[in-house]
Amino acid sequence: MSNDTSNNDNTTGTTSTIWGGRFEAGPSAIMEEINASIGFDKRLYAQDIRGSRAHAQMLVAQGILTQADGKAITEGLEAVEAEIVAGTFQFSRALEDIHMNVESRLREKIGDAAGRLHTARSRNDQVATDLKLWVRDALDGLDNALKDLQGALIDRAEEHAGTVMPGFTHLQAAQPVTLGHHLLAYVEMLGRDRSRVRDCRVRMNECPLGAAALAGTSFPIDRNATAKALGFEGPTQNSLDSVSDRDFALEYLSVLSILSVHLSRMAEEMVIWASQQFGFIRVSDDFSSGSSIMPQKRNPDASELVRGKAGRVFGALMGLLTVMKGLPLTYGKDMQEDKEPVFDASDTAELCVTAMTGMFKSVTFNVERMKADAGKGFTTATDLADWLVRVLGKPFRDAHHVTGALVKMAEDKGLNLEDLALADMQSVDAGLTDEIFTVLGVDNSVSSRTSLGGTAPANVLAQVAQARERFLK
Amino acid sequence: MSNDTSNNDNTTGTTSTIWGGRFEAGPSAIMEEINASIGFDKRLYAQDIRGSRAHAQMLVAQGILTQADGKAITEGLEAVEAEIVAGTFQFSRALEDIHMNVESRLREKIGDAAGRLHTARSRNDQVATDLKLWVRDALDGLDNALKDLQGALIDRAEEHAGTVMPGFTHLQAAQPVTLGHHLLAYVEMLGRDRSRVRDCRVRMNECPLGAAALAGTSFPIDRNATAKALGFEGPTQNSLDSVSDRDFALEYLSVLSILSVHLSRMAEEMVIWASQQFGFIRVSDDFSSGSSIMPQKRNPDASELVRGKAGRVFGALMGLLTVMKGLPLTYGKDMQEDKEPVFDASDTAELCVTAMTGMFKSVTFNVERMKADAGKGFTTATDLADWLVRVLGKPFRDAHHVTGALVKMAEDKGLNLEDLALADMQSVDAGLTDEIFTVLGVDNSVSSRTSLGGTAPANVLAQVAQARERFLK
Amino acid sequence: MSNDTSNNDNTTGTTSTIWGGRFEAGPSAIMEEINASIGFDKRLYAQDIRGSRAHAQMLVAQGILTQADGKAITEGLEAVEAEIVAGTFQFSRALEDIHMNVESRLREKIGDAAGRLHTARSRNDQVATDLKLWVRDALDGLDNALKDLQGALIDRAEEHAGTVMPGFTHLQAAQPVTLGHHLLAYVEMLGRDRSRVRDCRVRMNECPLGAAALAGTSFPIDRNATAKALGFEGPTQNSLDSVSDRDFALEYLSVLSILSVHLSRMAEEMVIWASQQFGFIRVSDDFSSGSSIMPQKRNPDASELVRGKAGRVFGALMGLLTVMKGLPLTYGKDMQEDKEPVFDASDTAELCVTAMTGMFKSVTFNVERMKADAGKGFTTATDLADWLVRVLGKPFRDAHHVTGALVKMAEDKGLNLEDLALADMQSVDAGLTDEIFTVLGVDNSVSSRTSLGGTAPANVLAQVAQARERFLK
Amino acid sequence: MSNDTSNNDNTTGTTSTIWGGRFEAGPSAIMEEINASIGFDKRLYAQDIRGSRAHAQMLVAQGILTQADGKAITEGLEAVEAEIVAGTFQFSRALEDIHMNVESRLREKIGDAAGRLHTARSRNDQVATDLKLWVRDALDGLDNALKDLQGALIDRAEEHAGTVMPGFTHLQAAQPVTLGHHLLAYVEMLGRDRSRVRDCRVRMNECPLGAAALAGTSFPIDRNATAKALGFEGPTQNSLDSVSDRDFALEYLSVLSILSVHLSRMAEEMVIWASQQFGFIRVSDDFSSGSSIMPQKRNPDASELVRGKAGRVFGALMGLLTVMKGLPLTYGKDMQEDKEPVFDASDTAELCVTAMTGMFKSVTFNVERMKADAGKGFTTATDLADWLVRVLGKPFRDAHHVTGALVKMAEDKGLNLEDLALADMQSVDAGLTDEIFTVLGVDNSVSSRTSLGGTAPANVLAQVAQARERFLK
Repeated sequence: MSNDTSNNDNTTGTTSTIWGGRFEAGPSAIMEEINASIGFDKRLYAQDIRGSRAHAQMLVAQGILTQADGKAITEGLEAVEAEIVAGTFQFSRALEDIHMNVESRLREKIGDAAGRLHTARSRNDQVATDLKLWVRDALDGLDNALKDLQGALIDRAEEHAGTVMPGFTHLQAAQPVTLGHHLLAYVEMLGRDRSRVRDCRVRMNECPLGAAALAGTSFPIDRNATAKALGFEGPTQNSLDSVSDRDFALEYLSVLSILSVHLSRMAEEMVIWASQQFGFIRVSDDFSSGSSIMPQKRNPDASELVRGKAGRVFGALMGLLTVMKGLPLTYGKDMQEDKEPVFDASDTAELCVTAMTGMFKSVTFNVERMKADAGKGFTTATDLADWLVRVLGKPFRDAHHVTGALVKMAEDKGLNLEDLALADMQSVDAGLTDEIFTVLGVDNSVSSRTSLGGTAPANVLAQVAQARERFLK
Repeated sequence: MSNDTSNNDNTTGTTSTIWGGRFEAGPSAIMEEINASIGFDKRLYAQDIRGSRAHAQMLVAQGILTQADGKAITEGLEAVEAEIVAGTFQFSRALEDIHMNVESRLREKIGDAAGRLHTARSRNDQVATDLKLWVRDALDGLDNALKDLQGALIDRAEEHAGTVMPGFTHLQAAQPVTLGHHLLAYVEMLGRDRSRVRDCRVRMNECPLGAAALAGTSFPIDRNATAKALGFEGPTQNSLDSVSDRDFALEYLSVLSILSVHLSRMAEEMVIWASQQFGFIRVSDDFSSGSSIMPQKRNPDASELVRGKAGRVFGALMGLLTVMKGLPLTYGKDMQEDKEPVFDASDTAELCVTAMTGMFKSVTFNVERMKADAGKGFTTATDLADWLVRVLGKPFRDAHHVTGALVKMAEDKGLNLEDLALADMQSVDAGLTDEIFTVLGVDNSVSSRTSLGGTAPANVLAQVAQARERFLK
Repeated sequence: MSNDTSNNDNTTGTTSTIWGGRFEAGPSAIMEEINASIGFDKRLYAQDIRGSRAHAQMLVAQGILTQADGKAITEGLEAVEAEIVAGTFQFSRALEDIHMNVESRLREKIGDAAGRLHTARSRNDQVATDLKLWVRDALDGLDNALKDLQGALIDRAEEHAGTVMPGFTHLQAAQPVTLGHHLLAYVEMLGRDRSRVRDCRVRMNECPLGAAALAGTSFPIDRNATAKALGFEGPTQNSLDSVSDRDFALEYLSVLSILSVHLSRMAEEMVIWASQQFGFIRVSDDFSSGSSIMPQKRNPDASELVRGKAGRVFGALMGLLTVMKGLPLTYGKDMQEDKEPVFDASDTAELCVTAMTGMFKSVTFNVERMKADAGKGFTTATDLADWLVRVLGKPFRDAHHVTGALVKMAEDKGLNLEDLALADMQSVDAGLTDEIFTVLGVDNSVSSRTSLGGTAPANVLAQVAQARERFLK
Repeated sequence: MSNDTSNNDNTTGTTSTIWGGRFEAGPSAIMEEINASIGFDKRLYAQDIRGSRAHAQMLVAQGILTQADGKAITEGLEAVEAEIVAGTFQFSRALEDIHMNVESRLREKIGDAAGRLHTARSRNDQVATDLKLWVRDALDGLDNALKDLQGALIDRAEEHAGTVMPGFTHLQAAQPVTLGHHLLAYVEMLGRDRSRVRDCRVRMNECPLGAAALAGTSFPIDRNATAKALGFEGPTQNSLDSVSDRDFALEYLSVLSILSVHLSRMAEEMVIWASQQFGFIRVSDDFSSGSSIMPQKRNPDASELVRGKAGRVFGALMGLLTVMKGLPLTYGKDMQEDKEPVFDASDTAELCVTAMTGMFKSVTFNVERMKADAGKGFTTATDLADWLVRVLGKPFRDAHHVTGALVKMAEDKGLNLEDLALADMQSVDAGLTDEIFTVLGVDNSVSSRTSLGGTAPANVLAQVAQARERFLK
């Protein structure tokens, strides 16, 4: 997902020009085009340089590199990084990837000592380390972003702990619930997402550096030292696995895919709730697009994009699963296809989580409309039946029968259940008392649902406090 | 994946009969066909009955159900389960699902008390509980099966700690490694799989029972009690989320997908290694198919099936992600599509892991062929270069140059590097001494790779011991 | 998707029993379990026997088989087929697949002549032929089922050619349209599906029989004869490709996936339209589920299942693409994984198309509700702006400005645009005349949209007639 | 897949900076980031301007626009296009998309007349038209690229019509085939791909322009005229469908996915064949990467990338299927997610097809190695059995028995079948004559396979001629 809108790239060529035309320069141009990764792996520059610095320092500590060489390398790498940050670094596709781009520039700066940096290392363990460092940073960033989204939801949940709305199954009104409770359902989903994020981080936090090309090395390296310097829990245990493994990327994409399911569910609800027919919410100007003709039109574009982008993330996961399927050990060039799906899915998730946070912070809930709809459709029929069971001790089957008859009576009279006269109700079942009115009505209904995890306003406030404790500390 | 080969099902109809013909009975037949889940959810019978038993006992403990009703229900459920186990239970599609099939039979057995079982419960929390219990069992089974596979691999790794073979990158011989080391790479992969299995189990181990239809209940239930009785860590925290959540199924399918990547990599190597051209292994008779004409033909069918079945598991994951994407809360009937992919992917994984265990236990490694190939392609050139760096202190760039010249000399003479005369080698670089022969040759090469996680036989034996400790205790 | 609800299969075992326990019989049991395909490929029995009959008759015609052997084989195959149809055939998993099951039974019936049937043939070309015949039948069945669904939609479109409803973008009311026009949009989608079905059929209609194992045969067979006998356009042109190719299955699954997108869009609209908030439709009793408590509850289960099952079909496609990716020529056992996704996706599509046909035939449209909503949200603002451009010759930009001001006026007064007084309107733009009322109002709006493909009722009736001509002849 | 390696984009930020940091500017920055499509849809500039030109000319012809306005618009659009081609156009993200960028610049150039261009049109039909034009161009380009690849394969097939190699099933040598025949199998696959490309083109070639926002228009437009001007077969038939439909994108991605399966199969074979153990091919320098140490190392990088990129294309298909699933009519912003997967998969396919063409043109086949392997493994045993059936009239079962005994004899003596003495062979079956030697040996074997589509060299030459006729004219 490049957001570059500069004029000078080659993406604006007509397709007819592209197809067949652009490779007139011959096979080497095709090979460079398919083979070079610098176009995307330059995003790893900070991780690459960080890894190289740790490696050089370890080589010095182990006496494999002289102090002087180590100093030259460390300072040289800092200078290279500064150039990249400053935007003055000239990336070269002929140098294929970020590793060679950095090393080549280092050689220009410090001469032959640059060549000693690659001692006891290969691009195979180097790229695995770089990508792991990147994904680890991304996991940390995601955890924070999800925390922000949870925070926004918890705040709104507290605000609407007592706001009554219809609870849906099959998009049919089923029972009244509170809006706060509904928003906390999302908080739970995101809590599981964060839990997955952290498990993934723990599991991947082993350092492949020092596996060399595939077999380990005969140099007396100290892999514990580099692992520690780079913030890893320790080194990986098998050199062949170290350069073959992309589990961490697959697991990250799995985590993002499940998160995308959650975000798409929120987004779908926003789109439906924003329709004129539902009218439950008004999406803020910031996150909707209008129309110059129809001032009332407020398209929930951002929600739709979040919903749609789930497909993009699933596609990234499916793509990388397919790439990795059936690859013989150890490194194969197919694995170069690991980076773009990870970057794209990561950017997508960042954008979607941030947009949802913004949307939940700014959305206006139409409390009256929600409450009015909460009572439509005899949504308290279950409460009536439960009362018959609980208070009169009727078997559930009989309770259902009586309830059905009362609902029919209300329907015929065009009334809600709570508006029926007690005498009329007693014509159906003589055991009914006016206590029944304490369970009918949407407010009574939600207040009664005090079971653990239930929708009662008092519960919701307690859950809000608990959620702050569990998730926002 | 039904393995039923009975004669009486309707799956042998010609397609022309099926299409258009089978629904002559009208709309209700179509609806029953699309709506009923008993054809597959009967696999949940044990979980369903277990959950009902726990629910009934809690209701009794809370005084919501009488002791007598509770006893009747408990004993009735046991009788129903016995019928199912005995194969005498008559499943009915008209009763739609396992819940109604069981409850209906219970009513036949114990009468009206059966109707009280559903107090403070709905099919929404019931089915979520059932499937969670099933997946939890499956995770435990998978963990054990993976442990067995690791055990088989570790045994063979120990046996072949010193067996030298070519280590590949890009399927090109790169450096010599040991077969034991190669097999331990798989053990690491499976170790991560098991770690994911256990994280998934911990995360999903919250009990949705008591969420009722979606909003909780006004009955004074004790959700901690049912959670404990069913082996859950505790109850879920939000009733809407409890009946909407299928994260555990998605995460299980993600775990199985990444595992399938690993199994497919092993399988691909088996297929390639079993070719006449490689000749590294001989798959046992048990796991290959022959030909009545060509006695030497030994098709590695089981490996190919394991490789192929990765697609099946990815498809299950993709399918369920798509089902769940964009579903408004809470329960939607779309979610009935959760069970078949879970069952099928689970059966598939079980079969593939078990088959791989059998294959690794019984495969014959052609040690001579592997060793012969290990030295082809100047695979110790890296060792030579490393020696030049390490012993003569040459910069890497110079070391590469010298090595290239020596490889060319060996190639021209049709010799391996270790077969060159020292004098000839000194004509390239006078600094070379006969110490160089201690690093050439595949045995010297692998023995030198003693860095942590490296391929040296001594390392491999240590890793075997460590792996037994980490994985098989 | 097995709908078998018999009691005696092994699918009701608890998972803990399954995992680890069921393979105590040893490796050969595992191999049989993973290797045998008879559990699902018995669905190919009719195609398999049809192909064998054609092959035998060609062998006789070419003098490769005697008349007597040919007669014995032909009659024997008929007898075997009769047994399968009658349900008396004993399928055996030890015989692996449908080919061996049939051939083995044929040998029991006619003796050694059965062995001559396999002359100049192998299972590789046999299974490719069988599956092609099955898919071809399925394509024909699908084409007919889609035609029925189009027929139902066209009938309802004609009925509602003049029924006005809101046309949505972003699920926001945008402009009034006619319901008939909306339904015809689906007819167009299905028309493309049918076009894809037929292209797929034409492309796949080449006979692989006679490719033998992979290389062709030295017997003087007549491939044109078998191709013709089996209804193929001709034989395939390359024997290696013939046994390696599963394009027809992949393309069929692609076609079903795109169809599933269409069906899921219809289903989503049904679910949304059936909500209390929209209230546009009432799904018939046949295709909804009720509740014993809430008589008004009418869950659109069938629609939700159709929507969800799109995931299942996508999963089948993803699975088979993965299976086929990177398979070396020619046949690999991985390809045995082709049948189940094809059967399952085909059954699913059949069920979904049939259910949608039933639903569209029986759904009740709430015409008043639709019309009432059609005018909400100033949906005719575009008509007003267009009139300003068309009649007064205003630049679009000015027209938009005037329209915006009028919409604001209407909003402030709580009126629809057509209810504003002309004088008030002229205070915004003096050029307005009472001709403006001919474009305001939802009926005027839809009637004016007479451009080709537009929503005007007269157009819709013409499109209905044209659709009958294009699709139902 | 951006290949831009400029320094100034924001993709080189560290992830920790990206996450959480970049949206400090507030909600409107997030909305612009998620909402704007100009970063990628600028690739549609040529199609967008072409469509606008056709629309303007039609408006003039219908008298809806004045000649003067039409002229200004047409010339203005040409000027805008010239700026984009020259790279001087300033794309603006605030203007969201290519349509608004172009129209805004047009207004700067020609003033108010620019505003009249949008008469009787909306962005909904405009973007559908643009993307259709782009995909149509891409389909044409793909057809040509595939033709080139077929041409390369046919040339090499002719060259190697008589080159014998092992034919594989299960990657086990099965029967000898000719390399030319093997290469022609790919030509068949690609032929089906091209057939799909052309069917897709025909089906999608209907013009949505004039559908306006969703309902058609009241302006007297001539949709046949714009359709014709843009090279479409005619206009679409339903305005709602016109703006909702992305079938053409889904079908294009399906076509590319099946093509990717084929390319990945070729690539897998190249990787395996290039291994030292197979040694069937030497990939040219242009398409492999070497190593500075090991001069013999020749990694088949390009093949591996082609193999891996199948995952990328599958991911694009899965992504867009998911996006489109369950979208209510008509346009939803989710559909903005259609372009990037189409562009990326299209670029990927272009690159892979072109690279494969280059690789097949330049690969060196090791004819001796192939022939030597062709005879290993008693690959002519089938020929022997067939001879026994054909000449001696033995039932197949007996023929198999005799063949098995002869293969065992050869195996025991360490000989190939054709090296057995006739007398020895007659000890197994007295009916054997020296005619048997005419079917043994790999050259005899392949020469005998003259059935239609068979592998005999004479067949291959005929197939080459026929393939040139079918595919390269």
